[in-house]
Amino acid sequence: MPKDYDQLAMKAHAEWRGKVDYVSKVKVTNHDELSVVYTPGVAAPCLEIEKHPETVRTYTGIGNLVAVITDGSAVLGLGDIGPQAALPVMEGKCVLFKSFAGVDAIPIALDVHDVDGIVSAVKAIAPSLGGINLEDIKAPICFEVEEQLHDALDIPVMHDDQHGTAVVALAGVTNALNLTNREPRNTRVVMLGAGASSIAVAKLLRMYGIEEIAMLDSKGLLTTDRDDMNKYKQEIANWGEFGNNSDGSIPQLPQVIKGADLFIGLSGPGLVTQEDIAQMNDDAIVFPMANPTPEVMPELAKAAGAAIIATGRSDFPNQINNALGFPGIFRGLLDARIEKVENPHKMAAAAAIATAVDDPSPDEIVPSIFKEGLATKVAEAVMSA
Amino acid sequence: MPKDYDQLAMKAHAEWRGKVDYVSKVKVTNHDELSVVYTPGVAAPCLEIEKHPETVRTYTGIGNLVAVITDGSAVLGLGDIGPQAALPVMEGKCVLFKSFAGVDAIPIALDVHDVDGIVSAVKAIAPSLGGINLEDIKAPICFEVEEQLHDALDIPVMHDDQHGTAVVALAGVTNALNLTNREPRNTRVVMLGAGASSIAVAKLLRMYGIEEIAMLDSKGLLTTDRDDMNKYKQEIANWGEFGNNSDGSIPQLPQVIKGADLFIGLSGPGLVTQEDIAQMNDDAIVFPMANPTPEVMPELAKAAGAAIIATGRSDFPNQINNALGFPGIFRGLLDARIEKVENPHKMAAAAAIATAVDDPSPDEIVPSIFKEGLATKVAEAVMSA
Repeated sequence: MPKDYDQLAMKAHAEWRGKVDYVSKVKVTNHDELSVVYTPGVAAPCLEIEKHPETVRTYTGIGNLVAVITDGSAVLGLGDIGPQAALPVMEGKCVLFKSFAGVDAIPIALDVHDVDGIVSAVKAIAPSLGGINLEDIKAPICFEVEEQLHDALDIPVMHDDQHGTAVVALAGVTNALNLTNREPRNTRVVMLGAGASSIAVAKLLRMYGIEEIAMLDSKGLLTTDRDDMNKYKQEIANWGEFGNNSDGSIPQLPQVIKGADLFIGLSGPGLVTQEDIAQMNDDAIVFPMANPTPEVMPELAKAAGAAIIATGRSDFPNQINNALGFPGIFRGLLDARIEKVENPHKMAAAAAIATAVDDPSPDEIVPSIFKEGLATKVAEAVMSA
Repeated sequence: MPKDYDQLAMKAHAEWRGKVDYVSKVKVTNHDELSVVYTPGVAAPCLEIEKHPETVRTYTGIGNLVAVITDGSAVLGLGDIGPQAALPVMEGKCVLFKSFAGVDAIPIALDVHDVDGIVSAVKAIAPSLGGINLEDIKAPICFEVEEQLHDALDIPVMHDDQHGTAVVALAGVTNALNLTNREPRNTRVVMLGAGASSIAVAKLLRMYGIEEIAMLDSKGLLTTDRDDMNKYKQEIANWGEFGNNSDGSIPQLPQVIKGADLFIGLSGPGLVTQEDIAQMNDDAIVFPMANPTPEVMPELAKAAGAAIIATGRSDFPNQINNALGFPGIFRGLLDARIEKVENPHKMAAAAAIATAVDDPSPDEIVPSIFKEGLATKVAEAVMSA
């Protein structure tokens, strides 16, 4: 019987009352110690930072501090549950930052929900931070928020739902293509779901060299004939120059998936049938990553002919888990004092994760997140990108 | 020779690289632990908070979390040194919160400097917090910021430079009046300095029952004849209905201090002479609290006849140190889930600090900040206020 993680989590969270402990590095037990930690001694580093602003990373903790920031509008698969209901996830992410990469992290839940509000709030608190992990902000607001913050700030800003997923998915795809003797440029990809993470995955796959990417949203294929799409979907439709069918209908998954090499789902439960999988190319690679219930269950996909399967779940092989990426990525960004996260950093991180698998096989295209040294390897790749 | 705290602080801060450590309360060493801390288990407390918002204090850490928030515009005696240069002070305060009262605290330095900007930023991050300690924000902006946040939020907001100082000063005044057999209503007070902390002290003294309070700014006495004062100064001038001299000149300290029972300085170094002190009433109480150099040095005040002297410094007896107040005050506010800090909380905290001195004497009108149980006593007073 599978464990009841819901019940375990409720009990554990009520005991913890917060998963992050804010501990003093310094003892304050007498006037001398107090005079160094606080007044009058503390004035000296303050004045030094005022004179030489870069020394803020020597005399304070911001050089190792990331905020995990959400507005609670797209939390896990739960949707728009609001900022405070999102806090257990943000705290959880802070725990992973610290546990896997020694990165200090604070959970910030915002009571603003439009682009301007989120951007203003994050810019306002940015002097307190060394990096910003945006989390669980709904599309398309998240694109604009990330872009504006990326441009405005001189500390790295990454929306992990987009880029963390993209990096780890690319790592898995890299090993899966190798195992099935495919070249990126000859690989035909079909993606179901056109949200923030899906679009980010598509962009990174394209940068990796995959040219043919067909993406479908709830209405069907993103085509150049449709006029109901935001600019992000339009861009992807333009890559393939896909059109509607001759009768004007929008191509649907069963039609599009025929002969595809790689399927990536970031949509909803059970949206893909065994018949769909059976229509794919030989040695099909299938990533049904909807959480908690995949687009197609791994055993069904396998029975329909899939050679390699990866999901978002920890109870199947090949979990495409953001936690493989973000701790090491931010470790590298912070240590190298990188001001902007750019595509080369993401590509390098994906390659590092892919090569962290000692002996790739259909059941192991990504490493375990508990693999010794993984975050360090990812960090080093990011630093030298 | 006095210790060189500047040099010790520079060295220590460079070693610490941040005084707050953000530690995980939870180990994550295998998939089961991960599934409770993060997905999929974490969804359960999220949904519970969405359904029952008050359970955010059960399932997250906000019930014990205060942010120490500044815009860096009035840091210590250093002035407007900017948000990042202020961070060592904010981190120091976080250390004191944790060390003295077990309150989790995070340092937040804001890159916004007007009332609207600060209020918007703090409101935006408020869902992440159980309380807000505003710090080192210049007057008169700090008044408006605190008032708006106090009204808008359902978590306690306190500008410690104002109210922390006021609470601890009132504690000292309470014992000093007792020791010199004075009643509040017969005590004549002269205050030098009309900044945020000075005005807060005056308001709390008045609430304590002291009716005659003359306050001077850099131009002299706050009088009802002056037209160069902000509304906060005007209010204080109205209390005493002081006017200018008959020749139209503004009364200055040597004139105003004659016969005063209590002098409180929150102004600048050396602004009070021995002659001024000598003009005061018998058994004069003198609080020259300018930092780091008092308005008049204690030994000079004593030689001029002062009976009880308190300063802001740790190297003289009777340090009026905010750290006597804020840790316990917030401990009480958080534990009793008090939504707004009101005057009764401050009065109760001051009384608790005053009575924490076992055997008050001219050299001990406030307790040591290392006194066992002080924060708990203050917290209990706040909770039952």
